[in-house]
Amino acid sequence: MKAEIITIGDEILRGEIVDSNKARIAERLLLLDVETHFQVSVRDHPEDMRHAFRTAADRADVVVVSGGLGPTRDDRTAEVIAATFGRKLIVHGPSVAAIRRFFERAGRPMADTNLKQAMIPEGAEVLPNPVGTAPGFTLRAGRARFFCLPGVPRELDRMLEEQVLPRIEADRAAAAGQGSGRVVRARLLRTFGIGESDLEALVSDIARRPPAGGVEVELGFRTSFPDNLLRPVVRAPSAGEAEAALERLCRELRTRLGALVYGEGEQTLEAVVVRELARAAPPTRPGRPPAWLAVAESCTGGLLAERITSVPGASAVFRGGVVAYSNEAKRDLLGVPADLLERHGAVSDPVVRAMAAGALGRFAADLAVAITGISGPTGGTPEKPVGLVHIALARSGPTGTSVDTASFVFPFDRARHRRLTVQVALDWIRRALLGVDLALPRWAPHARGGTAQPRAPAAGSTGGAA
Amino acid sequence: MKAEIITIGDEILRGEIVDSNKARIAERLLLLDVETHFQVSVRDHPEDMRHAFRTAADRADVVVVSGGLGPTRDDRTAEVIAATFGRKLIVHGPSVAAIRRFFERAGRPMADTNLKQAMIPEGAEVLPNPVGTAPGFTLRAGRARFFCLPGVPRELDRMLEEQVLPRIEADRAAAAGQGSGRVVRARLLRTFGIGESDLEALVSDIARRPPAGGVEVELGFRTSFPDNLLRPVVRAPSAGEAEAALERLCRELRTRLGALVYGEGEQTLEAVVVRELARAAPPTRPGRPPAWLAVAESCTGGLLAERITSVPGASAVFRGGVVAYSNEAKRDLLGVPADLLERHGAVSDPVVRAMAAGALGRFAADLAVAITGISGPTGGTPEKPVGLVHIALARSGPTGTSVDTASFVFPFDRARHRRLTVQVALDWIRRALLGVDLALPRWAPHARGGTAQPRAPAAGSTGGAA
Repeated sequence: MKAEIITIGDEILRGEIVDSNKARIAERLLLLDVETHFQVSVRDHPEDMRHAFRTAADRADVVVVSGGLGPTRDDRTAEVIAATFGRKLIVHGPSVAAIRRFFERAGRPMADTNLKQAMIPEGAEVLPNPVGTAPGFTLRAGRARFFCLPGVPRELDRMLEEQVLPRIEADRAAAAGQGSGRVVRARLLRTFGIGESDLEALVSDIARRPPAGGVEVELGFRTSFPDNLLRPVVRAPSAGEAEAALERLCRELRTRLGALVYGEGEQTLEAVVVRELARAAPPTRPGRPPAWLAVAESCTGGLLAERITSVPGASAVFRGGVVAYSNEAKRDLLGVPADLLERHGAVSDPVVRAMAAGALGRFAADLAVAITGISGPTGGTPEKPVGLVHIALARSGPTGTSVDTASFVFPFDRARHRRLTVQVALDWIRRALLGVDLALPRWAPHARGGTAQPRAPAAGSTGGAA
Repeated sequence: MKAEIITIGDEILRGEIVDSNKARIAERLLLLDVETHFQVSVRDHPEDMRHAFRTAADRADVVVVSGGLGPTRDDRTAEVIAATFGRKLIVHGPSVAAIRRFFERAGRPMADTNLKQAMIPEGAEVLPNPVGTAPGFTLRAGRARFFCLPGVPRELDRMLEEQVLPRIEADRAAAAGQGSGRVVRARLLRTFGIGESDLEALVSDIARRPPAGGVEVELGFRTSFPDNLLRPVVRAPSAGEAEAALERLCRELRTRLGALVYGEGEQTLEAVVVRELARAAPPTRPGRPPAWLAVAESCTGGLLAERITSVPGASAVFRGGVVAYSNEAKRDLLGVPADLLERHGAVSDPVVRAMAAGALGRFAADLAVAITGISGPTGGTPEKPVGLVHIALARSGPTGTSVDTASFVFPFDRARHRRLTVQVALDWIRRALLGVDLALPRWAPHARGGTAQPRAPAAGSTGGAA
């Protein structure tokens, strides 16, 4: 099955917005193993739209159209698709009623133009929109089945899930003869701290496993800096078998990869950290969650705090942070001794250790992370090159404070240096909460042209009282 | 002139990346008044690529192709475009030499596969790539002129600017008869603090001005949350006239709009703030730049510090910040009196005022901004709704400290609430450094469906000793 995606809107063609709908539709279709061969965007102009619809009807089996279903004059998808394939536009009674109900529920007056959204090409099947006014529709033209959907991401997502994917699956089952179709199920495992080729090597035997009992397994890999993502895909004769096999496969992969897997799907590392903090019972207050976190940042300049506080509910676990961009701030707000700064410099193991211990104390936290480094583009020396970063994790325990530290040289530009450094810091917090080793076992980041080198002391625990 | 953009790459079609190249190319073409009618993405498959190239050659005048010029087996643009239009692939000697030089300069060994990048369709003109190994090329096919460029954004940008746009301009001048073509010049003015319709109203007489002396003026408007952008476009008989007229027009617009315009083109507000801090001579050390900045953040959680420190060189002007996510942090790290927190709550005018004064003192800064608010999604009360935010700006002067404050209710989701709040804070710093009023004169943010209301006391100065 070949798919084509068509998105409609002048603002896309003028480059005013980066259209992410094409990627989200393609990703969903791939869950059913349907590959997108063409992505096309056109203006709200009937001639261009007609050209795109006709071309797609000739070369694709599934065409997903997004946009152009709104109430304004510029929204022309229904009208143009009807004209392109020689159909009339008709009023769809149930959609008129649904649109009226939508406005009643919202307590807003309905404009007459909204009724335009109930005009559907003759013979099309209406796809209800549970979260907006514009219904979608599906019709067959040329070799293709068209699905016309609204461009609002929330509405698009819901309708893809509920209306489009099941129909594609049913079409395929019907084409293959009742009941004999193949069902595909997939998930996405997010890993951090391992390079793409090392990740592949760790699971290569699973990827090469031959089909058994009609169940095939495939592993996909991709990089989303600084993470590496693993996509297990299962094909089986029935949905039940596919789901059971996928569940078994994911359990096996998680057992194999251990703490390298931090989450699934769209989960972020900061969301996992906030969740684990909320669950944790710190050793100084056993049985009384949550654990409290504080941070001290120099070169990452607030990015670590920002990532954590972007998670709703972070205020229950996050006490605060200091962005210590000057030596004086490190001294006055974190209590780093002036002579440490003088003797070792701001980017050093003793200073990052003192920053973490200082943050732990000042914020009365259970865990504190500190970062100091040189993100560039300037500021390096032969001994302390651009890219050098020290990270420390301090924990308060019943017998005092322990601090782990490590340093790295990350040879990336300023923005990616900061992103990668923050990801290491978040991962350390997660690992500390899970009670596993902080060390990054197979560190080889995955960005093109870059390799990170653990610096002596290599990413290891140097725990002890601070 | 009709343009079509074709981007190539399996990862785009699988939805693994959101392809922003299409938008950046479209935006550049529009600078020359060339409208993009179709954007197409295809996999690295010869058949699909051929189909896309042939379709574009029939319907567009300018076709910009990005991607598929790298050294790997999957990079097939040159080979497929040659085959599609019946040309041979030939080795381009000067490109071989340029690729060798590139690797020598980088001190890296050159793989044989890199020589593939010097294979060009016969009759094509080579477009040199000053920042990478893959040269581009241009050729004519069907009604169109094709420009094939690498997909790496940095290389793409540079080659669009230096190689593609001048050739399109020359083609157009030639088509219109030597010297009689129309030349277009455009710029982008970035504004903050005014709604789109208010902005339009302020300059509507200029937008309606009739052509004079062969010079036409057009004003374009668009929103890039939370900013509004104004694009003056000038069409004139010659480049000299167009540039002079555009310069006059921009001066007139800047005079009319005053401090509402914070920058041009791709400039960010944080870059402007860092630049102005570096230039400023604070009143307590007259004649001795820079001015030092500190911040205290609650609901924005480090985003303000992160934005500032994302600018290279920020360390010369930024002393640091406190992310005071708990009452204790506001008290212990910023010196906010406990009774203020108790009597007025953390989200209040007295507390934000004390936070700003505290940051000013603790970091020995010349300027300090403080933010406290409720970004949601929960945590509101009838009196202090979700979306409420207090902002304060403290300045140290020869006669003591003055603090300005205001509060707003921004009815946006958590992420946009934080972005908008930080933009107001950055804009206040900029306005303070320029010596203009902090008040937002025509506040009506520009996001669809949302309106911000200034709350009493409306965005005004309440200066005084703190």
